[in-house]
Amino acid sequence: MALPVFRFSSPSPLDADTLKINPELVERYLIYFLRDEVIRQRKMSRVVLGLSGGLDSAVVAYLAALAFGPENVTAFMMPYKISSPTSLADALLVVQHLGIESKVIDITQMVDGYASTYEIGLSPTRLGNICSRCRTVILFDQSMEVGGIPLGTGNKSERLLGYFTWHGDDAPPVNPLGDLFKTQVYELAKHLGVPNQIIEKPPSADLIQGQTDEGDYGIGYDEIDVILHALVQGYTKQHLLELGLDETKFDLVNRRLRGTHWKRRPATVAMLSDSAVGEYYLRPVDYR
Amino acid sequence: MALPVFRFSSPSPLDADTLKINPELVERYLIYFLRDEVIRQRKMSRVVLGLSGGLDSAVVAYLAALAFGPENVTAFMMPYKISSPTSLADALLVVQHLGIESKVIDITQMVDGYASTYEIGLSPTRLGNICSRCRTVILFDQSMEVGGIPLGTGNKSERLLGYFTWHGDDAPPVNPLGDLFKTQVYELAKHLGVPNQIIEKPPSADLIQGQTDEGDYGIGYDEIDVILHALVQGYTKQHLLELGLDETKFDLVNRRLRGTHWKRRPATVAMLSDSAVGEYYLRPVDYR
Repeated sequence: MALPVFRFSSPSPLDADTLKINPELVERYLIYFLRDEVIRQRKMSRVVLGLSGGLDSAVVAYLAALAFGPENVTAFMMPYKISSPTSLADALLVVQHLGIESKVIDITQMVDGYASTYEIGLSPTRLGNICSRCRTVILFDQSMEVGGIPLGTGNKSERLLGYFTWHGDDAPPVNPLGDLFKTQVYELAKHLGVPNQIIEKPPSADLIQGQTDEGDYGIGYDEIDVILHALVQGYTKQHLLELGLDETKFDLVNRRLRGTHWKRRPATVAMLSDSAVGEYYLRPVDYR
Repeated sequence: MALPVFRFSSPSPLDADTLKINPELVERYLIYFLRDEVIRQRKMSRVVLGLSGGLDSAVVAYLAALAFGPENVTAFMMPYKISSPTSLADALLVVQHLGIESKVIDITQMVDGYASTYEIGLSPTRLGNICSRCRTVILFDQSMEVGGIPLGTGNKSERLLGYFTWHGDDAPPVNPLGDLFKTQVYELAKHLGVPNQIIEKPPSADLIQGQTDEGDYGIGYDEIDVILHALVQGYTKQHLLELGLDETKFDLVNRRLRGTHWKRRPATVAMLSDSAVGEYYLRPVDYR
């Protein structure tokens, strides 16, 4: 199946054109998707989201404002004490552009209420996971205050690389971006009119000064996305090397994909009956 | 498929004997399951779990001590300021009986670091969700400190009723009890030698004094489990009423089951390609 939202179907999986999208069609489909999931399926009218100042959450804010009207969207900025002030400023820019509701909730007291016992030696990875999960706790709680449903903002590149916090960034029940590679989110962002300063800054988890996603990977999203796409299409390593792919780059992306299948799955449960939940007993989420 | 761990196969789905288990066989299978998932699949040797003082986590502690040896099990007691002191005492009893490692981490500063902004009017439901999710944040973080994998303790009754916190109690990646109804967990607990005072106290989320699960439902687990089992087997309402089931009880259990399918699913993601993660792109969790 190839949906018409993709503009090209190139004969080589390594041709960057393979991933080009038709942004008008993607926008239209995602607005339909959001309305369908929130209004028709869940009988709700309001949404909430965490706005980091980065690209993905900005794009979701634009889509949500189009789908539900700015008055039905509440964005939460949840800085930690070491978050960059630029992140908050960029998030506020999105809020002003769209005219959506917003609230700043500093997570420092909550995070340090636990993490301060480890003041010395808590690794950036552990601190990052704690921050991500605390933001989810707050977003889910605020969704009850506001009466809205939380929207997820994780893209397909980071979902396939496992570059997210399990039960953190991936937790919100409805996510419009999860099947778009990062390079495709850029295309959509330009089409939607997301401010240039957000599009142009390098993606970062904003936990260490100067840290960037692509620095962590050692390879850029333009190359990552093409390799990931070829891998999930089922191309073999041999085939891709013959087409000219660098072996080091293949191994780097392949290792992250293969090592993180558990992050794309619910818990493994011991099966003892013929009605094990999530195994034999499956229902669509909208079953009533 | 009927696994041999079930002792009886009764002709009526409302016969309580339908749910009777063979506890020796269940114990043996769950020890095999835990070793297989943790040691063989994940190449780890240590586990961590949250020990509430209640039945389910006590049973998991007993199973883990048998599967990995008490020296490879670390239990975390994570009381909030309004938790009952009896809960902590009962959890410590399990720790002493088994000789497992343990640590008490008070979550009050973390929870109130956020919740104190709502000192007046934060409902018990919201506070309960915040506590459950904060315990998950800590358990996942401590699992990195200890180098162990977190075990889940949710049983089949609460999973089917949706009586748990999404991305809270259900988050740990390996759960031995998820396919056992609460009444079956009782049978297993007696067989394993879980202390009587834990088996005999009424199940409770320990958030309001005197609150019990069964008080919340308005019906006991012995009746709930039989109805849930019949429902997931596909029996119709009409059939069950003809067999003598009370309609009010049917409706009560059925409503909770039907209204909570979303809690047994990962997020809904907009599908835009022929390789949408979790839709077309599926791999077993242990794929390498």
